[in-house]
Amino acid sequence: MQRLWLNCHAATMAGGRYSIIEDAALVSRDGLIEWIGPRAQLPAGEYAESHDLDGAWLTPGLIDCHTHLVFGGDRSGEFEQRLEGASYAEIAAAGGGIASTVRATREASEGELLSGALQRARQLLSEGVTTLEVKSGYGLNLAAERKMLRVVRLLGEMLPLTVRSTCLAAHALPPEFAGRADAYIDQVCREILPELAGEGLVDAVDAFCEHLGFSPAQVERVFQTATALGLPVKLHAEQLSSLHGSSLAARYRALSADHLEYMDESDVIAMAAAGTVAVLLPGAFYLLRETRLPPIDALRRHGVAMAVASDLNPGTSPALSLRLMLNMACTAFRLTPEEALAGVTLHAARALGLHASHGSLEPGKVADFVAWQIQRPAELAYWLGGDLPKRVIRHGEEITHG
Amino acid sequence: MQRLWLNCHAATMAGGRYSIIEDAALVSRDGLIEWIGPRAQLPAGEYAESHDLDGAWLTPGLIDCHTHLVFGGDRSGEFEQRLEGASYAEIAAAGGGIASTVRATREASEGELLSGALQRARQLLSEGVTTLEVKSGYGLNLAAERKMLRVVRLLGEMLPLTVRSTCLAAHALPPEFAGRADAYIDQVCREILPELAGEGLVDAVDAFCEHLGFSPAQVERVFQTATALGLPVKLHAEQLSSLHGSSLAARYRALSADHLEYMDESDVIAMAAAGTVAVLLPGAFYLLRETRLPPIDALRRHGVAMAVASDLNPGTSPALSLRLMLNMACTAFRLTPEEALAGVTLHAARALGLHASHGSLEPGKVADFVAWQIQRPAELAYWLGGDLPKRVIRHGEEITHG
Ligand SMILES: [Zn+2]
Ligand SMILES: [Zn+2]
Repeated sequence: MQRLWLNCHAATMAGGRYSIIEDAALVSRDGLIEWIGPRAQLPAGEYAESHDLDGAWLTPGLIDCHTHLVFGGDRSGEFEQRLEGASYAEIAAAGGGIASTVRATREASEGELLSGALQRARQLLSEGVTTLEVKSGYGLNLAAERKMLRVVRLLGEMLPLTVRSTCLAAHALPPEFAGRADAYIDQVCREILPELAGEGLVDAVDAFCEHLGFSPAQVERVFQTATALGLPVKLHAEQLSSLHGSSLAARYRALSADHLEYMDESDVIAMAAAGTVAVLLPGAFYLLRETRLPPIDALRRHGVAMAVASDLNPGTSPALSLRLMLNMACTAFRLTPEEALAGVTLHAARALGLHASHGSLEPGKVADFVAWQIQRPAELAYWLGGDLPKRVIRHGEEITHG
Repeated sequence: MQRLWLNCHAATMAGGRYSIIEDAALVSRDGLIEWIGPRAQLPAGEYAESHDLDGAWLTPGLIDCHTHLVFGGDRSGEFEQRLEGASYAEIAAAGGGIASTVRATREASEGELLSGALQRARQLLSEGVTTLEVKSGYGLNLAAERKMLRVVRLLGEMLPLTVRSTCLAAHALPPEFAGRADAYIDQVCREILPELAGEGLVDAVDAFCEHLGFSPAQVERVFQTATALGLPVKLHAEQLSSLHGSSLAARYRALSADHLEYMDESDVIAMAAAGTVAVLLPGAFYLLRETRLPPIDALRRHGVAMAVASDLNPGTSPALSLRLMLNMACTAFRLTPEEALAGVTLHAARALGLHASHGSLEPGKVADFVAWQIQRPAELAYWLGGDLPKRVIRHGEEITHG
């Protein structure tokens, strides 16, 4: 089905810049962009359907490239206790923190996990997200990680979203392995990853490299296993301290290294050489009241692509809005609105290995786009909260209206 | 019309605490709350209509007690220029800053202003706001301030919202009075306020007390005029420096003093004695990347009621979400979720002089409430962005669903 989309401007995000086309036209055919350009240059022809976009600004469909949105329970009780004066140690002693999410996730049925995940994914969808990454990592054993990843696959089947699954079995040490981190990594490498990869549940492999998580040596074993399985890797790195996880990730040609507040210039250079994307997560930075900023200027100077994501998770970023992350990336990290928008489109696609097909409005890519009723693209980062009026088109089909 | 609302829990916010009723029932009649309590104690009787709330949590309708949501233009272009490296001085020299909003507001027709204001007010309404304050202050002459306040009145007539109007003619010095602040205050006191009050457009009078705005002596003249006109006062005070505007406000028994990052304990004591509400505006704090916190502990210790508001304005807080302000009040200012919720219900009502009729779920008050599909009230502050599922009831009538 060929469709013509008219009466709009486009921030195509080609090359990671706005790459604006004023008074644009877009032709979609069978879910792909067949043509986009100034309306005056539209090839003559008959189009089965013509859609008037009422002066809207088109952007690529938004891409949230780092979420943990499948989880059991929530942590609002703990959020409240902390603000009422409980210390982290007290909360941990009472079974709180990530341990409580692991417990709740293990206890939840697949249907219960799916219900919660659908609700959260629909929130992102409703604000223009058309591609979503979701990690496991609250199961921490074969059965529970499998359950999480099945839910991730179901999300992609049930919602008009492209969903990528990441196995994050090396997220935290499960309680039954207390004091035996190497033994758990053994299990991840010998059992969990090969099994789940064999079941087709895994698009990429991630780990948490931190004093609170796993050492670079342990992460490297996970990366070796992933590489042997033919899976690309990603890494939570340099969030709270510098272990040079981002350099390690670059050595394994990771799709992305994420967080990065504590990375140094040597890490930046390694990532630039490897083409590894820097995924910035301002929601967690904000919620944890961090003060150390990721080295944005160095990332710019060395030409590292910067993505921006919600990190949606129950502990450190219960963020149901990717657009809010645009504002936080600008306000807290001093990205420009253009960089922030590239961070949830082209560079987010790259962080998922999807940049050949997603992330910008160019002929041959999927026809995933949002038509925003705004005056200029900077408004996407400017307004704080709220729901900007829009129409969302995925694979050339309109999926929401208003 | 008498209606029974069942199958819910209630955070009534009576006394500014959650004041929870588990398994509650609420009876509304003719727009008021006739009865609320545990379902087991529901008076026997016939009810014309019974509504099943499906296990929801009831809270009072939210109250945004400090907004500037009537304005011409927006400042997204300036937001972008600043992040691209332009200095405040360069932006001001190019006619940016508040001067650009004044220009756009003066140039806009009443209908244009109304269109923009309706959009923004609907955003707040859609997340559970049932009472809203809106200030003038971008007109800065009689005709343009009148135009703004008429739009404020129209909002209340067109939307299912209780709208209070505040005349903020003493917001900034209009360009035609450059260097003649006292002469402008003369005009505010002799012409603008008496005229607009006489037309019934003004519910309260506000001013901006700051080195960038007006001196305490100038503000005092405005307050004297307001008092002579029988109007209550409010004040933007101690946002960027300490001029003891909040103590001045207390001397005039102001409904509220707002911002307050730089207030000291003497100001706190004065406000406590006067019953003046402290309105906290975390959106502006966040957007300006301020580091000085309002003295929350001193406000608590002296028993000053704390409200929380969006400060929705195009320059320093383009915030389309009051619920996001709950999270920011907790995350940045360390309010508890209970304090934050009291800040957008009972204490916000007090900041508008409406606490006898609004702000808590108690017999005799208006039946304005929200039924949230959440597990506990802390979730209202916990989730960052997004649109929590809810039903909104105003004056006993359901106004939205979903
Ligand atoms: Zn993460
Ligand atoms: Zn204000």
